Amino acid sequence: MQAEIITIGDEILIGQIVDTNSAFIATELNNIGVSVYQITSVQDDKSHILQAFQEAENNADIIIITGGLGPTKDDITKNTIAEYFNDTLIQNDSVLKNIEAMWEKYIKEPLSQINIDQALVPSKAQVLMNLYGSAPGMWIETNGKVFVSLPGVPFEMKALLMKEVLPRIKSKFKLPFILHRTILTYGLGESKISNRIESWEDALPDYMKLAYLPNLGRVRLRLSAKGINKDQIISEMERQINTLLPQIKDIFFGFEEEGSIEQSIANILTNKGKTLAIAESCTGGKIAKLITANSGASAFFKGSVVSYATESKIEILNIEQSLIDKYSVVSPEVAEAMAKSVRKLFNTDYGISTTGNAGPTKGDSNAEVGTVCIAIATIDQVYSETFYLGNHRTKVINKAVNKSFEMLKKELLKN
Amino acid sequence: MQAEIITIGDEILIGQIVDTNSAFIATELNNIGVSVYQITSVQDDKSHILQAFQEAENNADIIIITGGLGPTKDDITKNTIAEYFNDTLIQNDSVLKNIEAMWEKYIKEPLSQINIDQALVPSKAQVLMNLYGSAPGMWIETNGKVFVSLPGVPFEMKALLMKEVLPRIKSKFKLPFILHRTILTYGLGESKISNRIESWEDALPDYMKLAYLPNLGRVRLRLSAKGINKDQIISEMERQINTLLPQIKDIFFGFEEEGSIEQSIANILTNKGKTLAIAESCTGGKIAKLITANSGASAFFKGSVVSYATESKIEILNIEQSLIDKYSVVSPEVAEAMAKSVRKLFNTDYGISTTGNAGPTKGDSNAEVGTVCIAIATIDQVYSETFYLGNHRTKVINKAVNKSFEMLKKELLKN
Repeated sequence: MQAEIITIGDEILIGQIVDTNSAFIATELNNIGVSVYQITSVQDDKSHILQAFQEAENNADIIIITGGLGPTKDDITKNTIAEYFNDTLIQNDSVLKNIEAMWEKYIKEPLSQINIDQALVPSKAQVLMNLYGSAPGMWIETNGKVFVSLPGVPFEMKALLMKEVLPRIKSKFKLPFILHRTILTYGLGESKISNRIESWEDALPDYMKLAYLPNLGRVRLRLSAKGINKDQIISEMERQINTLLPQIKDIFFGFEEEGSIEQSIANILTNKGKTLAIAESCTGGKIAKLITANSGASAFFKGSVVSYATESKIEILNIEQSLIDKYSVVSPEVAEAMAKSVRKLFNTDYGISTTGNAGPTKGDSNAEVGTVCIAIATIDQVYSETFYLGNHRTKVINKAVNKSFEMLKKELLKN
Repeated sequence: MQAEIITIGDEILIGQIVDTNSAFIATELNNIGVSVYQITSVQDDKSHILQAFQEAENNADIIIITGGLGPTKDDITKNTIAEYFNDTLIQNDSVLKNIEAMWEKYIKEPLSQINIDQALVPSKAQVLMNLYGSAPGMWIETNGKVFVSLPGVPFEMKALLMKEVLPRIKSKFKLPFILHRTILTYGLGESKISNRIESWEDALPDYMKLAYLPNLGRVRLRLSAKGINKDQIISEMERQINTLLPQIKDIFFGFEEEGSIEQSIANILTNKGKTLAIAESCTGGKIAKLITANSGASAFFKGSVVSYATESKIEILNIEQSLIDKYSVVSPEVAEAMAKSVRKLFNTDYGISTTGNAGPTKGDSNAEVGTVCIAIATIDQVYSETFYLGNHRTKVINKAVNKSFEMLKKELLKN
């Protein structure tokens, strides 16, 4: 069972937006046992879209199309679908009622013709009702294959995929079981890991595949398996991982499927009833942003201070000028003072701090670009580590955020 | 002159990563006059990659391939390229020297065989030296067409694209001129804008195309033109925009090509020599994170407080408990007190604050989920606006960040 995802829109091809829809759709299809054969992004151009439909129909059983369903002249997907299926557009009364209700509730103005035209759908299509926008989704079956057209607005696409598309795919097709497990490691490069685990990798069964995913000082090892016997796949995956783990004990950090590291930190803190405060300098608010991106953060996160200017370290965090003069603003001593101070300020169980120089210039400190000190304060101790994270600003910030979460998780797992 | 981008890697097809490389490459190709015909993502599967190469060669003049160049067994791009061109891999001494130098400097251990094998390249390829990793880029010409293979690690890919690939494309091909201008609007839906500017849109010359890009309460209008006469395109674009702007005066916000709104805020503050502090509640550090993502922020950004818990609003920002009791923690009054307080705390010219409820539950406040109050404090005044931003957590946060930047930019443009 193979799917192809086709995303339509000039904005993708000129690089104005990053296509995030495809990754979402691919993840969800995998979860129900559908492999994605190819992702294709094409311009708002009729003949090109028709060609992409034809190639997808040759290669895949399920074709998921997003984009080009808006009301304006540049949106041509619906007409192109009608042409591909030798079909005509007819008005769908339920869609029109849905649009009318939306306009009455939110827009409070009469419908214009281009709004009414949003209710036109190919006569062969089953309508997938879009509760969050005026463009309906469409489901068209042909020669045992399925074409699905969804709006490109991520929020609308996701709701339709989850509520309408996946259940229909599950009931129409007999699907295999797909399992991915991704092992998080840090501290060793991919070629060294590969050397170390070579004999294990060579002995993997045919239906199981290993991939190395290096990024920002971490290597993720993804094991994928696919088959009809769900129980066998699960137990073989378990067995293989249990054979592997002792070989990578020193670099093993967890499993990606357990959620992101900030989610696992959130879970630990919430379960323990402990609280956290953050003092960020070079990471500029990114640690707090990630911590608060998931709901439930208010259970354990009291707040943070982004002390970007040296003077604000002194004033808000009460770091003594003499400490900064003696050790410099990017130093283990200042990092530790910041962590201690922010923990006290917000009255929490844990405090974490970053101070560093993300570049491109040296700023208020003499530390080399890329130097970052990270400290953790608990109720009875404070300690820090110093990292040298290269000279690319965005990478320095992201690596420092990763390191902060890794140090914090390690601390939380201590007891 | 058409290009196709092919990104290779199972991690894309199972949705484990979002392909951000393609948007970067597409933007840069457009900048030098190369249109991207299609973006194709395929699995680490030899026959599928070969098929994608063949289809790309049929449709495009330039084929840019990323991914699958690592040292491990799942990386098969290089061997597949050799097969596609009936070629063999030979050791490239400069690449090997580059790898040896890197290992000596960073890894400080002898090269293993799989590291040495990174220096194998197809004999027909020109090597593009990768200064940031062990996998070289490759440039192969065939029948007047060009295949370029780049590593998938974004940092390495970007450096090779900018320093090696684009200059070679510019010198090999005669390129047209491509111009995009994107007008930012807010406050009106795309179908209404479309109605309003219909006669202007219908009169656009054939070589100029308009696209509507709606997202999070804003609609971007992108005008694209392509041709050989650069001067004519620039002046016609100018003329069309000057005809359009008076029709959308009330919703016009700026041009995307002037940079992001946070960059333009950074420029204004830096030029005026003014400073900024931020107090974030529901936006959880995201405003500070965006402000500090670009270098040079230390010129105007003093710092921020993320006061996530109500008690930290009271303690760190010195908001009076009686104010919170009287008006609730999500209220214009508390937002204004926060903006005033953070401005004073960090001793800056401007303070901006957010307090709201991003959901999914009501938290410490009685305000409906989605309610966000944003306040701006200057040296002599403070004011706020209250927004209702729906009930989807991530959307509420992102819209609140947008609104904050819009209010701040408006304030900065006042004098």
